[in-house]
Amino acid sequence: MADQYVPALRWEEPPEGPVVVLLDQTRLPAEEVEVVCTDVPALVGAIRTLAVRGAPVLGLAGAYGVALAAARGFDVGEAARQLSGARPTAVNLRYGVDRAVRAHRAALADGADAAQAAATTLAEARALHREDADASARMAEHGRALLEELLPGGGLRLLTHCNTGMLVSGGGGTAFGVVRAVHHGGELRRLWVDETRPLLQGARLTSYEAAREEMPYSVLTDGAAGSLFAAGEVDAVLIGADRIAADGSVANKVGSYPLAVLARHHGVPFVVVAPVTTVDPATPDGAAIEIEQRPGREVTEIPVPAAPGLFPEETPAGVPVAPVGAQAYNPAFDVTPPELVTAVVTERGVVSPVTAAGLAELCSPSRPATSRSGNGMMNS
Amino acid sequence: MADQYVPALRWEEPPEGPVVVLLDQTRLPAEEVEVVCTDVPALVGAIRTLAVRGAPVLGLAGAYGVALAAARGFDVGEAARQLSGARPTAVNLRYGVDRAVRAHRAALADGADAAQAAATTLAEARALHREDADASARMAEHGRALLEELLPGGGLRLLTHCNTGMLVSGGGGTAFGVVRAVHHGGELRRLWVDETRPLLQGARLTSYEAAREEMPYSVLTDGAAGSLFAAGEVDAVLIGADRIAADGSVANKVGSYPLAVLARHHGVPFVVVAPVTTVDPATPDGAAIEIEQRPGREVTEIPVPAAPGLFPEETPAGVPVAPVGAQAYNPAFDVTPPELVTAVVTERGVVSPVTAAGLAELCSPSRPATSRSGNGMMNS
Repeated sequence: MADQYVPALRWEEPPEGPVVVLLDQTRLPAEEVEVVCTDVPALVGAIRTLAVRGAPVLGLAGAYGVALAAARGFDVGEAARQLSGARPTAVNLRYGVDRAVRAHRAALADGADAAQAAATTLAEARALHREDADASARMAEHGRALLEELLPGGGLRLLTHCNTGMLVSGGGGTAFGVVRAVHHGGELRRLWVDETRPLLQGARLTSYEAAREEMPYSVLTDGAAGSLFAAGEVDAVLIGADRIAADGSVANKVGSYPLAVLARHHGVPFVVVAPVTTVDPATPDGAAIEIEQRPGREVTEIPVPAAPGLFPEETPAGVPVAPVGAQAYNPAFDVTPPELVTAVVTERGVVSPVTAAGLAELCSPSRPATSRSGNGMMNS
Repeated sequence: MADQYVPALRWEEPPEGPVVVLLDQTRLPAEEVEVVCTDVPALVGAIRTLAVRGAPVLGLAGAYGVALAAARGFDVGEAARQLSGARPTAVNLRYGVDRAVRAHRAALADGADAAQAAATTLAEARALHREDADASARMAEHGRALLEELLPGGGLRLLTHCNTGMLVSGGGGTAFGVVRAVHHGGELRRLWVDETRPLLQGARLTSYEAAREEMPYSVLTDGAAGSLFAAGEVDAVLIGADRIAADGSVANKVGSYPLAVLARHHGVPFVVVAPVTTVDPATPDGAAIEIEQRPGREVTEIPVPAAPGLFPEETPAGVPVAPVGAQAYNPAFDVTPPELVTAVVTERGVVSPVTAAGLAELCSPSRPATSRSGNGMMNS
């Protein structure tokens, strides 16, 4: 199925030399435009303008960027510094850069020449890519099995928020990957796509991915989700996560928490899909999660079409819709407490109910990956 | 305080003859442009393009339109037909037209000449205007008293949705009128303004009115309201209503119901403010309320600035944000069941708890307007 992916990022080796090719997400869904990066400054620019975005895929961009510098004979240390600083809050970006740099250094220390070290670095980036794709595949299968258990009989109507698919991942994604598995299993009746204001990642990107997969889907304003719940048209909510605290509190795109409250009010499962790296043992609970406040302009202005960058996340340029000087409250994320989360699905299995002990056991490095515990935690 | 209103509609008599002057709501908040209608076709055009919108003020437009036709010697019957058909679902529009037509006919039947009948018709339009303004003022006082009872001590942080102020009313409006009274009483700490997707009446129009009143206010995406509740930043929700069923179910702009569920989850009062004419005894319950489904383009396209009509409600012209062919779910309204509504505030008093019996007694024509009953219904 991998060739059905819309690659957010790929490595190519044309005769002119290796390049990193990105799908420009700022042009979606109007145009599928690729950005070809022949050096690290070009890749850094693409990261900064959000041509490539999303935690897992930023890790890949960092690793391939280091590999690109090594392959083309640039200063690898300088490339790593530029890449790591492109989006200072992106932990995954630095993780990918660091892994590639370590591989490069180790190769040189082992006596490899520049070409051999470059090949080793590229191999490390590709390994990270495979790991991410594998994690996506396992999350998709765990999530699909959970839904079959919770909602036997298929014909599922699933609601999602923001964008969690192939565009942010080396594989099929997190929540969207589960939806995709359900769809491929012939059990998706409809995907409800929250538009996800203010930056419309749902309307723009999740719809784009759903259309590419030929899913039955409908876009809705975030406020219209309540009507769907009231009408009994939502069987489960599936979302991703930006961070999961040790107690199971889930930080995700703003608008997730109202869905959790609606889901609870209507007795609908609320499922979070995220790799184990999203669980942060250093964050004890929801109150400890610092929520980024974004520029008010994202709310008080409507983005205008411009090439390139219809909706650049960091520097929106728009037409004012609110009065001049209007203040806005614009948190990037909200926090859903664990008691409203039916299950957390990871590549290592499912935690349900969501408890600190269950999460800790799942994330433990010593934990066998195929056991099944009886304490409310499902593995496979 | 009436001269602080931004008049959505007014009658003027310059030397060239009488006119109806409208504030063009499609140009707000960027520009305050007035539309001067010298005849009924011009007024019909303004109604169709939503230069004037909102149930109560459409009633006034209908009545003044008939008065304009009478004063300028046009065919009153033909004018009434054109006006009533301008927005076929607008009950208030027809109500205003019918009242003015009846006044005109009665005057002619009583032997009045054309000029006298025109004067009588204008007097009827003005009476409707006064009634509407009076109802606004009484709702504002009842609402303010209710909030003082529920939330003594002032310093209120109120959340509202859509636009319910001077722009849709001959007076101060419904929910916004209550906010205004709280503000004038020095007890408004902050007004949280839901932007109200898809047509952004909150960001565009409520913010405009809040700015004119120099209120402390902030705009937010509809999905960000959950974060405010979670942070304890909302003391009460105040919304209007498009229709209230006999059982107390409230149809209002889509996005209202999720606020009701959040308010209940957080123990925050959820207050509906509407004139008694909004209560429809012929609609038994929420299930009997037919919900208008609006064009999907309102969701899948972002409105582009154009003059006139930044956001024409019926014919949005926009830039696609979702893929070509994307389906959208776009109900205009949602329904909140009475058990989630703390109180219904009308010009005749407050119903709380919201029950069929309480609503029926309030709406009864024989009901004394100044009694106070002991069955959970407050009057004054």
